Amino acid sequence: MTDRLHPGATIGILGGGQLGRMLSVAASRLGFRTHVFEPGANPPAADVAHAVTTAPYEDEAALRAFAAAVDVITYEFENIPTSALDLLEALKPIHPNRRALAVSQDRLEEKGFLTGLGLSVAPFRPVATREDLEAAIHGIGTPAILKTTRLGYDGKGQARIMEPDDAAEAFAAMGGQPAVLEGFVRFTHEVSVIAARGRDGSVAVYEPGENVHLSGILHTTTVPARLTASQRTDAVLLAGRILNALDYVGVMGVELFVTPEALLVNEIAPRVHNSGHWTQNGCAVDQFEQHIRAVAGWPLGDGSRFADVEMENLIGHDVARVPALALERNTAIHLYGKAEARPGRKMGHVNRILRPVAGA
Amino acid sequence: MTDRLHPGATIGILGGGQLGRMLSVAASRLGFRTHVFEPGANPPAADVAHAVTTAPYEDEAALRAFAAAVDVITYEFENIPTSALDLLEALKPIHPNRRALAVSQDRLEEKGFLTGLGLSVAPFRPVATREDLEAAIHGIGTPAILKTTRLGYDGKGQARIMEPDDAAEAFAAMGGQPAVLEGFVRFTHEVSVIAARGRDGSVAVYEPGENVHLSGILHTTTVPARLTASQRTDAVLLAGRILNALDYVGVMGVELFVTPEALLVNEIAPRVHNSGHWTQNGCAVDQFEQHIRAVAGWPLGDGSRFADVEMENLIGHDVARVPALALERNTAIHLYGKAEARPGRKMGHVNRILRPVAGA
Repeated sequence: MTDRLHPGATIGILGGGQLGRMLSVAASRLGFRTHVFEPGANPPAADVAHAVTTAPYEDEAALRAFAAAVDVITYEFENIPTSALDLLEALKPIHPNRRALAVSQDRLEEKGFLTGLGLSVAPFRPVATREDLEAAIHGIGTPAILKTTRLGYDGKGQARIMEPDDAAEAFAAMGGQPAVLEGFVRFTHEVSVIAARGRDGSVAVYEPGENVHLSGILHTTTVPARLTASQRTDAVLLAGRILNALDYVGVMGVELFVTPEALLVNEIAPRVHNSGHWTQNGCAVDQFEQHIRAVAGWPLGDGSRFADVEMENLIGHDVARVPALALERNTAIHLYGKAEARPGRKMGHVNRILRPVAGA
Repeated sequence: MTDRLHPGATIGILGGGQLGRMLSVAASRLGFRTHVFEPGANPPAADVAHAVTTAPYEDEAALRAFAAAVDVITYEFENIPTSALDLLEALKPIHPNRRALAVSQDRLEEKGFLTGLGLSVAPFRPVATREDLEAAIHGIGTPAILKTTRLGYDGKGQARIMEPDDAAEAFAAMGGQPAVLEGFVRFTHEVSVIAARGRDGSVAVYEPGENVHLSGILHTTTVPARLTASQRTDAVLLAGRILNALDYVGVMGVELFVTPEALLVNEIAPRVHNSGHWTQNGCAVDQFEQHIRAVAGWPLGDGSRFADVEMENLIGHDVARVPALALERNTAIHLYGKAEARPGRKMGHVNRILRPVAGA
């Protein structure tokens, strides 16, 4: 707690989406102000931030002024241009660190890092050329999925290869970007572990949640997840190992495929994560506050779960259901203040408190 | 739900203190923006508001611009100058309404209103002169408490009269303001009922909380309160009667003295209330969101309690305890971002989740 931030300090947040919005709210509970840096106009986080800078990541003067106005910097998304990071990290501390960003910005680096820790991932091969892809399909088999190594998000930059003949179309879909072919894993379900590590090196891990996706976008996360006691322990331990190996500070989302034999790491996100939104209504300290605590040098908070919760995303025109959802019992609504409900756009979510946890 | 506000709408809040801050956060969860009007610089609510007007309540141009920028107006404190209300209510809807403000701004009006509903209050007499006070002491007896009829808050404008000889000093303490002498009630404890009424006339009432004061300032509120089942029902019903009689829209705090014979209404506050802060960590929909729902014309939300909770105020240098409180299990911290910890100043509060409610 030596150099912990005191109430009144300002936390800089790169990115002004819904994650930045909920980080701002959590920061306010601890007496902090936030300053959001976002290229787009009217970002969701601006409604609840003390200050907003609207400028592109290439605007060095704006970046310098932002750094001067804040005490520490964090981010709500991982695809921050390297030049902006270079400039900012010379001026103010940035958490999570550069290594965490580098690993999660590139699927190949990520898989190399994870397998280097002895963790299991789906079979994979790097793909730079059509020939690489043919060889990779030969090695891994089909079905498989081809993904750009960088900038993937919510199912973008991905193409399924159900049989070898799909290779040409999938390769074209990468648009010349370096890619990686991943073998399909016969997993029974996917779970997420939301883990946090403080500046003092302490680690706190929320109970794993079980994810269901629709059209490549997270639909629901439910806690508790279907896991055996030993799977649950394994999931928590492997998340801790990842955080420690990266000397990580903040909250990370770790997506895992569950098979009868193993837990395979699908991907890691160096930020608060959609699959951790249930913590807002299931824990005394939610993932957003946990991240702010870590970044501010506070001790991590109690992330134990006091209720079974189902989080459901409201995508696009799902927001039209809000009047009905507003009448539901034990249901907490979280809207992001976005004006236009485009298909696939995350407009909000609800947390349903299913039942309290006995003896919590 | 005909003219309910839609996400993206702006709620104007008169007053920028901690209640306005927490109203802003709740508004953001429903996709609303807030615009805070506050004469003082750097108000706590400004950190999480979309817009802030810093101007005195006498600045008509600022009031007009504020009204033009918002869709509906509410407030976080009841002592708003009448001239400002006159101007604003001609321009935009204000909830709760003028009658609720008039009743709660004046102790005599309040007591007349409550007794007119057939509710019990402490014995009282109006006091304009020294002679009134002598007669009131003669009629009510001592100990008693002399209070200005207007602008009372957190024990200010009050003087205890333990014996008739204290009268002169107590009268002087009123500074020539109209006052009311209240007889001491032999109550065993005080409870608060946080009640809400929607624009459609529906009423929702949170479970009563039990209050403990220190030096005239709320120290803790604990749910459940010590009440029999019939007292609990009575408390809820009388709160509903008050809201209906005022055609009230929004959240109200009703403080009750509990005696073996009766529940006496101590005072009503036409706003979210310190004794309702426990709802932030005990209910899916807290008092702040409930107020925003009512003001925005939404249906009231589910205020059923899923946990036993103790709220403790952090007053003045209590904030120095935050590093220790941050380590407590099942404890949610809520700080208001105030820079200076003056004695008696409300700096924040914590909600301790004591245990989940079985079958909630």
